Amino acid sequence: MIKKKSPKTAKKATFKPVKKKVSDLFIPIKDRTTVGKPEIRVDARAKVTGDAKYTNDLCPRDAYCAKVLFSTIANGEVIKMDIEEALKVEDVVAIYTCFDVPDHEWPSAGHPFSLDPSHKDPSDRKILNKRVRIYGDDIAVVVAKNEVACDRALRLIKVEYNEFTALTNPHQAMEKDATVLHPNIAKTNAFAHTTFKKKPDFDYEKEKQIAIKKYSEENLVEVVKQYKTPHISHCHIELANSYAYIAADGKITVVSSTQIPHICRRIVADALQIGVGKVRIIKPYLGGGFGNKQDVLYEPLVAWLTTKLNGHCVYLELPRENNISGTRTRHAMEGNFKSLATKDGTLLARDVQIFSDNGGYAGHGHSIAAKCSGIVNNLYRDRQGSQVDTYSVYTNTATAAAMRAYGIPQACWFAESNVDDICHKANLDPLKFRYDNCADDTLLSGGVGFYTYGLKECMKTGAKAIGWGKKRKEYANQSGNIRHGIGMGIFIYQTAVWPISMEQDGAMLILNQDGSANLLLGATEIGQGGDTVFTQMAADACGFTFDQIHIVSTQDTDYSPFGTGAYGSRQTYVAGRAAKRAGIEFKRVILEYACKLLKRKSISGLDIVKNKIIDKKTKKKLMSVADVAIQSYYNKGDAGALAVRVQEETESNSYASGAVFVDVTVDMAFGKIKVDKLVACHDSGILINPALAKAQVQGGISMSLGFGLSEEILYDEKTAKPLNNNLLDYKIPTAMDSIDSEIHFIQLEDPSAPYGNKALGEPPAILPSVAIRNAILNATGVAFDQAPMTPQRLVEGFKASGLI
Amino acid sequence: MIKKKSPKTAKKATFKPVKKKVSDLFIPIKDRTTVGKPEIRVDARAKVTGDAKYTNDLCPRDAYCAKVLFSTIANGEVIKMDIEEALKVEDVVAIYTCFDVPDHEWPSAGHPFSLDPSHKDPSDRKILNKRVRIYGDDIAVVVAKNEVACDRALRLIKVEYNEFTALTNPHQAMEKDATVLHPNIAKTNAFAHTTFKKKPDFDYEKEKQIAIKKYSEENLVEVVKQYKTPHISHCHIELANSYAYIAADGKITVVSSTQIPHICRRIVADALQIGVGKVRIIKPYLGGGFGNKQDVLYEPLVAWLTTKLNGHCVYLELPRENNISGTRTRHAMEGNFKSLATKDGTLLARDVQIFSDNGGYAGHGHSIAAKCSGIVNNLYRDRQGSQVDTYSVYTNTATAAAMRAYGIPQACWFAESNVDDICHKANLDPLKFRYDNCADDTLLSGGVGFYTYGLKECMKTGAKAIGWGKKRKEYANQSGNIRHGIGMGIFIYQTAVWPISMEQDGAMLILNQDGSANLLLGATEIGQGGDTVFTQMAADACGFTFDQIHIVSTQDTDYSPFGTGAYGSRQTYVAGRAAKRAGIEFKRVILEYACKLLKRKSISGLDIVKNKIIDKKTKKKLMSVADVAIQSYYNKGDAGALAVRVQEETESNSYASGAVFVDVTVDMAFGKIKVDKLVACHDSGILINPALAKAQVQGGISMSLGFGLSEEILYDEKTAKPLNNNLLDYKIPTAMDSIDSEIHFIQLEDPSAPYGNKALGEPPAILPSVAIRNAILNATGVAFDQAPMTPQRLVEGFKASGLI
Repeated sequence: MIKKKSPKTAKKATFKPVKKKVSDLFIPIKDRTTVGKPEIRVDARAKVTGDAKYTNDLCPRDAYCAKVLFSTIANGEVIKMDIEEALKVEDVVAIYTCFDVPDHEWPSAGHPFSLDPSHKDPSDRKILNKRVRIYGDDIAVVVAKNEVACDRALRLIKVEYNEFTALTNPHQAMEKDATVLHPNIAKTNAFAHTTFKKKPDFDYEKEKQIAIKKYSEENLVEVVKQYKTPHISHCHIELANSYAYIAADGKITVVSSTQIPHICRRIVADALQIGVGKVRIIKPYLGGGFGNKQDVLYEPLVAWLTTKLNGHCVYLELPRENNISGTRTRHAMEGNFKSLATKDGTLLARDVQIFSDNGGYAGHGHSIAAKCSGIVNNLYRDRQGSQVDTYSVYTNTATAAAMRAYGIPQACWFAESNVDDICHKANLDPLKFRYDNCADDTLLSGGVGFYTYGLKECMKTGAKAIGWGKKRKEYANQSGNIRHGIGMGIFIYQTAVWPISMEQDGAMLILNQDGSANLLLGATEIGQGGDTVFTQMAADACGFTFDQIHIVSTQDTDYSPFGTGAYGSRQTYVAGRAAKRAGIEFKRVILEYACKLLKRKSISGLDIVKNKIIDKKTKKKLMSVADVAIQSYYNKGDAGALAVRVQEETESNSYASGAVFVDVTVDMAFGKIKVDKLVACHDSGILINPALAKAQVQGGISMSLGFGLSEEILYDEKTAKPLNNNLLDYKIPTAMDSIDSEIHFIQLEDPSAPYGNKALGEPPAILPSVAIRNAILNATGVAFDQAPMTPQRLVEGFKASGLI
Repeated sequence: MIKKKSPKTAKKATFKPVKKKVSDLFIPIKDRTTVGKPEIRVDARAKVTGDAKYTNDLCPRDAYCAKVLFSTIANGEVIKMDIEEALKVEDVVAIYTCFDVPDHEWPSAGHPFSLDPSHKDPSDRKILNKRVRIYGDDIAVVVAKNEVACDRALRLIKVEYNEFTALTNPHQAMEKDATVLHPNIAKTNAFAHTTFKKKPDFDYEKEKQIAIKKYSEENLVEVVKQYKTPHISHCHIELANSYAYIAADGKITVVSSTQIPHICRRIVADALQIGVGKVRIIKPYLGGGFGNKQDVLYEPLVAWLTTKLNGHCVYLELPRENNISGTRTRHAMEGNFKSLATKDGTLLARDVQIFSDNGGYAGHGHSIAAKCSGIVNNLYRDRQGSQVDTYSVYTNTATAAAMRAYGIPQACWFAESNVDDICHKANLDPLKFRYDNCADDTLLSGGVGFYTYGLKECMKTGAKAIGWGKKRKEYANQSGNIRHGIGMGIFIYQTAVWPISMEQDGAMLILNQDGSANLLLGATEIGQGGDTVFTQMAADACGFTFDQIHIVSTQDTDYSPFGTGAYGSRQTYVAGRAAKRAGIEFKRVILEYACKLLKRKSISGLDIVKNKIIDKKTKKKLMSVADVAIQSYYNKGDAGALAVRVQEETESNSYASGAVFVDVTVDMAFGKIKVDKLVACHDSGILINPALAKAQVQGGISMSLGFGLSEEILYDEKTAKPLNNNLLDYKIPTAMDSIDSEIHFIQLEDPSAPYGNKALGEPPAILPSVAIRNAILNATGVAFDQAPMTPQRLVEGFKASGLI
């Protein structure tokens, strides 16, 4: 069910944190022909039939195959490598080891790049690493004519290591005698630490004494607790894969399953220490990324290999095992909370330390832990203040970086568990507590605020849909093995990454002779439906119908407009602005040409509606865009095929928000959770395509179910060897586990966005897990503080509580 | 040898035929860093090593193979076709006949398209033709998984024809009872007729009487003669080939070895009766075209086939036999001359009828014959006027259309033979006669004139180099079997096709982060070196060095700027203008951005020289373009990757001209001609790249040697079956036949051109043949009026003249 009208309690936020640099974009669109409609995905047919070509499909038939030799220790150094026997294997073309690669370290993070040296991503890895920091680090590569030869050769390479103690968690890594993994980056493994405070002189213990004086101790409730989340894997269907060759034009050309082709180009150039202009990246269709393909990991390797092999094409596909534990993961985090509230439901103060396990490499550095702690801090109004200290720590577990919702699933696991723990202890209604204490429309954090505010309306809508009050009563006194509970959670989420990073995207529209137009963007389709919504946005802006815009899905750095790619739920907000701007400019150039043909003095009386040039006053059709198009191409003496190319910087950001409610059945004996009902309510501004928006939410719910109930990368505690890095032992939800959810949208038009839209790509993955956790608490009184809540952990927990 | 300085007698033409609409382009370029230099081709390495990918290289491994069934009659109708047995062949996927294709006729000519209905190309063929008009017409197509299956099936198709008398020449085709081949196009086979007159009331016989009165008969010389040229083949190395598939985006995508990707897109859309926006054409590297790939012949077929085969990729490569006689050829023409001059060397009047054998289909319609007759008319100043009547006639021989120099080799074969015949008869010096009677700088024809005039300087330079006077004397009285002779010819040639057709091209420049730039054009590299000279032109216009411009060679209608392609020697003049304009605009946007960084008020004091921003006054370097580039990408708050996209219409045209001199040895008994020396002098304006210019002239000379001495498609006179459509029996010059020529350029800066340049691609193929013909006349007194002058014809001619 999709709610379209703005309800009464949802309101336009009073706070305006940023200047509206692009206010000329906000022309009233009276006749939206396609934005807001559930258009069928432009790639639906191709993806269903198999016509959509992915990186592997495009790889030339004579490409060499490359396979990486992965380290069998997690912490140490390669001393020696013997490749003699391996080189003798038939069809092996070449073997390169960590001793052969350029002595140059580069960053893998898919960030736009910064001119500020203090804001640069840590350069902490080489194309192959002699200094091993994860189990399965890249230490050599075999290139052969086929996979079998690669595998045979890999088995024959002999490696000698100097091994150090594996560091499996941040606390161990922060010990004094722990090996410092990246001495070039930081003197200790805790390579970054930030403190967020609601007021500069905040001190929890001092505030607690003040509170005791003011309210007296018996009217206060304090919760001191630790919450934990694990490393989890993105598990995109298409494995990390790419191939490279030197093209006829001399460019090192990399075709890659990447979310960020333009950033990938810069990083490959950096890793190879050549000019960006000598690198070309092509991004075909992509079978899922979820943030893992926002790091540039193996593109530099294949690019370097082709330079060693006379430009011959080299293809590399990472095995699933290494996709799980050797690429990037969601950060395992630990949140240590002290929280103080009044027993009648006013949150007073919180003191939080977060330890983020970054694994062996920096990935996105401290930015994810920082974003996590920012939301922990801002999600609630602590009346006496709060403090969140966050440490990003190198360990020898899997490297963590971007994953859908970028630290906020952890933030909400912490903050939303904590709120329910407070309410449980003080016997308060968690809905009311949230309503009274959550971030309101005055929130401003780092220059980002609410332009429109729908969080409380989301709570109200969700509570009504789940039957909050009624169910709370119904489930108040239960006994027996099978119990029911309801739970909830709320989130706030920044759309895009400004002002932390530069936000920019480009778009191009080319008028074809038949009156249709080609649309090109730097923004990438990665399965989320980007191509479809960009088509809608551009079409509406220029007055074309949806079918008359032909989007070019492939990004190719030879010609695609610059854009930084798919991450941070930014594209509809940032690239959408470029698409809209291009549409507006495109309409202008078409009308200017039509103006001459119609012998009018100015375009002010003209408009384009559904591919027709009309008189604004009479609404009469004067000519078709196709008529204009053919003239613009062939009208001798005034010919000039029409096209526009725009590049838009976005200097605003806006909070999206939402609430999720669940009704669950807990089978305590079996540690089994059944979600009977899930209601997701999102304040994501205006929906460009309600069908795709709903699909995003459904997908996010599935991911969060895995996060809450089953997913976790396990390590051997001594060696840091991953124990379950395969899809048999690592449990992601299957189609059988997916649940039928009720989805509501609170559609308020965000004035900072091209079509009133806000973040939607990532937020759906935030809350379901913690809402279930809180529902289990509601059902059983047992608080599970560590995700995932596997049957094992549940049974142990219920046993410890004496319930079974 | 390349002459760089403008000699004294070469002069700036006084006549200015067209307005200079684009005068803002003519900024003084003081520091040409690359234009005018013999830069190495940008594709040199790729083409030598084999890295350059051609259509066939790119075809997917699972593409179906398509082969055409060619008719075994030249004139008639297919009544019935039996494909039953053929369909049974293993691996055959489908067979379509002329009875299956859409009942829609379309034009194949690679013209830009015209909005004027009277100027449209004749639509006279279907995807497969039931009405057969050449021997080898396309009547059915077999699609199979491999070539062998195709061939087997082709042999099993049974065809029943209704056969008509084959028409092997224009006169036969113009007879009253001849079958009219295209009744929809014209009522007779002579489908077009034009008359050019120097004065409206010109009548040759009347003028002759006037001349007799004025000069008296004994002071006049009249030549009445017929000259003939044959059908010849382009013989490009890469056969006509293309493949098509329906891509993920639903577009019918054709990868083709075409000179004209954007025109090809329009014609495929026309043939399939779909919108242009639903067709995508990709043009990779191309192995020669010479005009043959300026017709769109088999792209509609593969495009249609993929629509029948569920979007599966279908590849078609035409056999060499059908490339020679089934695609396009140079028009066989016949020129019937009556010419009158005074015996002291003044040309008085000419009356000419030209019959152009267009073969079975229109191809480029009447435009080539018309262009031929225009040059016959304009090459000389007939003091009492002239008349050239030209007929384009359908026959059942190979279809004729564009071939390098588009009718002018025939024009000059006629006019230049005729001039030497006049001189021979009146004992005049052909050099002086030409000097006194040739077109001067006042010539204006159809809006095209000389902006700069170097024709007479070409004659002087060439005469000096060949030793004209000395050799004429030396060869005056010879006897015996082996004789020597010198001969010459002159030409004038219109650069580009304006105002007959619209002239338009686009260019795009994208600044990369390292300060280099990508250059994209609609103009195509077809082997001539276009990519290199466009790189030079754009580089100079924006102040970049040659190596900092990365041209994108492939044209792809999804994103490439619109341009009509490679033909008419137009690209350096028309697309060059777009490249230069883009460079100028690009410089402006870079300087505007630099201006902000440098905190200057305006860009007027700034310039870009060799990739550096300099102060115009002090000439000091202020920053590099790379500095600007990185800021433009990542300067938060003012970020916007820089790029420009321009579309330029060209509304001017300019005559190029030149002269060729040869010194030959004639072995009369063996009918053998040895070219001892060839001097080619070209007035092509400023050379963008002298090395490539020289290579163009050398290539043209080889082609003209074939035209003059050996090449000719022969037909069975009864059936019009081609007799020598293979490279054993059809004789093109080989590397062994190439001659070492002396090449001079008269470099006058044409003010209508982007860098003072004029046509050079085609003109070198015009004169060597007729210069040799005139040298044989000089050596032996025997005039050979029919090309090619094969040993057979030479021996017969010398025998008839009693010389052997």
